[in-house]
Amino acid sequence: MKLRLAMYDRKFSVLFERYFQALTRTLEAPAFSRFVLEARDLLQDLSLRGGKRMRVALLHEAARLVTDEPVAGLDEAALSIKLLQTHALIHDDIIDNSPTRRGGPSTYYAYRARLPHHPQAALGLALLAGDLALNLSQQVLMDSAATLALRHGMVGIQLHAARAMFTGQIADMERDFTSLPDEDMLHSVAEYKSARYSALAPMQLGLLAAGERPTRFHTALHRYTRSIGISEQMRDDYQDLYGDAAAMGKPTGTDIRDGRRNYAVRAILTAATDEERALVESILGSPDCTDAEISAVADVGRRHDVPRELREQMRHFAQQAAAEAASWRHHWREDAVAFFERLPAWSLERTS
Amino acid sequence: MKLRLAMYDRKFSVLFERYFQALTRTLEAPAFSRFVLEARDLLQDLSLRGGKRMRVALLHEAARLVTDEPVAGLDEAALSIKLLQTHALIHDDIIDNSPTRRGGPSTYYAYRARLPHHPQAALGLALLAGDLALNLSQQVLMDSAATLALRHGMVGIQLHAARAMFTGQIADMERDFTSLPDEDMLHSVAEYKSARYSALAPMQLGLLAAGERPTRFHTALHRYTRSIGISEQMRDDYQDLYGDAAAMGKPTGTDIRDGRRNYAVRAILTAATDEERALVESILGSPDCTDAEISAVADVGRRHDVPRELREQMRHFAQQAAAEAASWRHHWREDAVAFFERLPAWSLERTS
Repeated sequence: MKLRLAMYDRKFSVLFERYFQALTRTLEAPAFSRFVLEARDLLQDLSLRGGKRMRVALLHEAARLVTDEPVAGLDEAALSIKLLQTHALIHDDIIDNSPTRRGGPSTYYAYRARLPHHPQAALGLALLAGDLALNLSQQVLMDSAATLALRHGMVGIQLHAARAMFTGQIADMERDFTSLPDEDMLHSVAEYKSARYSALAPMQLGLLAAGERPTRFHTALHRYTRSIGISEQMRDDYQDLYGDAAAMGKPTGTDIRDGRRNYAVRAILTAATDEERALVESILGSPDCTDAEISAVADVGRRHDVPRELREQMRHFAQQAAAEAASWRHHWREDAVAFFERLPAWSLERTS
Repeated sequence: MKLRLAMYDRKFSVLFERYFQALTRTLEAPAFSRFVLEARDLLQDLSLRGGKRMRVALLHEAARLVTDEPVAGLDEAALSIKLLQTHALIHDDIIDNSPTRRGGPSTYYAYRARLPHHPQAALGLALLAGDLALNLSQQVLMDSAATLALRHGMVGIQLHAARAMFTGQIADMERDFTSLPDEDMLHSVAEYKSARYSALAPMQLGLLAAGERPTRFHTALHRYTRSIGISEQMRDDYQDLYGDAAAMGKPTGTDIRDGRRNYAVRAILTAATDEERALVESILGSPDCTDAEISAVADVGRRHDVPRELREQMRHFAQQAAAEAASWRHHWREDAVAFFERLPAWSLERTS
């Protein structure tokens, strides 16, 4: 598992490096502009700065469900997936006003550092860098040497995925205006906001490039990627409160400070006594609350066994995904099916 | 001229109304979300709220350069053009922190009014509504009943146009960090930031849909749309300082307050004495400067005959565009050529 992921990782890093080098020449822009080159640099920097490359593995393994021969279009699909992700991170960090991302500055705050007296210009430039990444994520598919039909199909998949992400993010913000969101709401947000573009679309792209019609497997793919998406979202929410800040490379409690009514917060609010609930509500959404207050929220959860409950739930959804993948054996290749079967549990173990 | 534009306008309004009605059903989104429907409403509201529909006329007239038969794909191209424009306005109003647009609230400030205690959420929702409009501007082309090759070609044109706009906007912000931008810089910004997506792309789409290869006419189309783009940018910059606020439906002097080093500001700074230049620089970029201070800047220009110089220059570029169009007679249809020939002067006369 780990070996295979590392292989995709190496291959992809070379590809991405080459892509951004070529972009310096091919990106049409006003000749005088140094800011455009700077935007290109910031896109490259964020894209290459760590981040699990799970999406690229999903793409390649989905093609391997069908064939172990080389498949045209996968390189461009991989670039498209990463550029869409880069777009999502940049706009997300504007939406959340986040200074950091993957152990470095967010693109927004990189611009703020460059233009310390012009925060509004920094906001504008970050927004445009994000727009540019979105555009490039589609252009790279248009420029593929694959057949017209495949290129067109891939563009369609990525447009669909990006749209799901936008509506999912809108719904995600709506969630935080709901005092106690129900589970279906959280599942739906996890599916739209992340599973669709980071798991479903890579799998669809891989299958399409390998000559399969992804619409034939609509239900199977949705079931698998939705379960894995929910499981991973639960893990993220769990770790934001109960994780190890040092191991994650980012502080805990940011969701509490930002007033995010995520899986962990929902579980705590549901289990809490009236008095505890009042305490949690008084801390939730206070940007300047102390670490001790964050701990107090975490302790309310601990008293009601919320951490264990969350771990069980995320395992449940991971198992659900694995069971779905196991059912693919009769029409797809064994070693790739085994990858999809093991992935959900592996993805949880890595970090929890 | 006016009649023909009014006809496109009527036809397009019906088309757009129908498109947004269908979108309520077809836009896939988390089922619980009211915010997504609200975003849809705000996109419709901004898209239908006035705004010259010149781009749609350019599209149809470009097809009529080739044929006066009905042409498949034009309706979707028109929707795509308007949705890209809607995207541009929404993100632009975030970048500029503009409360108003076309005599109503900007999308950003519409959200601020709905969520008065959550300015950060308002920013995020507006940004996402803009992202959604960009996505829809491409999806509508994918969903056209035109041939695969035409759909793909149209998507390529719009991706190219959007990318030019993004790099043009980045370069536009860079311009304002240049104490005295040279003319080429301003021309280049006008071309990338607006002419490419609002004039070049509509013409390319119309020609492509009508069966012409737009790349064959690369130079002619670039020359025409660049000249018209520069001419119209000059008119906008002129009017921002010397226009009639009541007739325009927006206040004058916003560019001065925002520190935009546009054609008018450049001309004034170039003509001014040292003392006058110091005065202009002291006012430029002061968001709270008074109307009297704006008038003082305008008066510096008047003393050096800047308004007349600007009017002459915008006419020069309009004439250049008209001369280019006149040269199209030997390979394109007369009445459409005549439209493109008259358009530049007409576009200036309407408002200056």
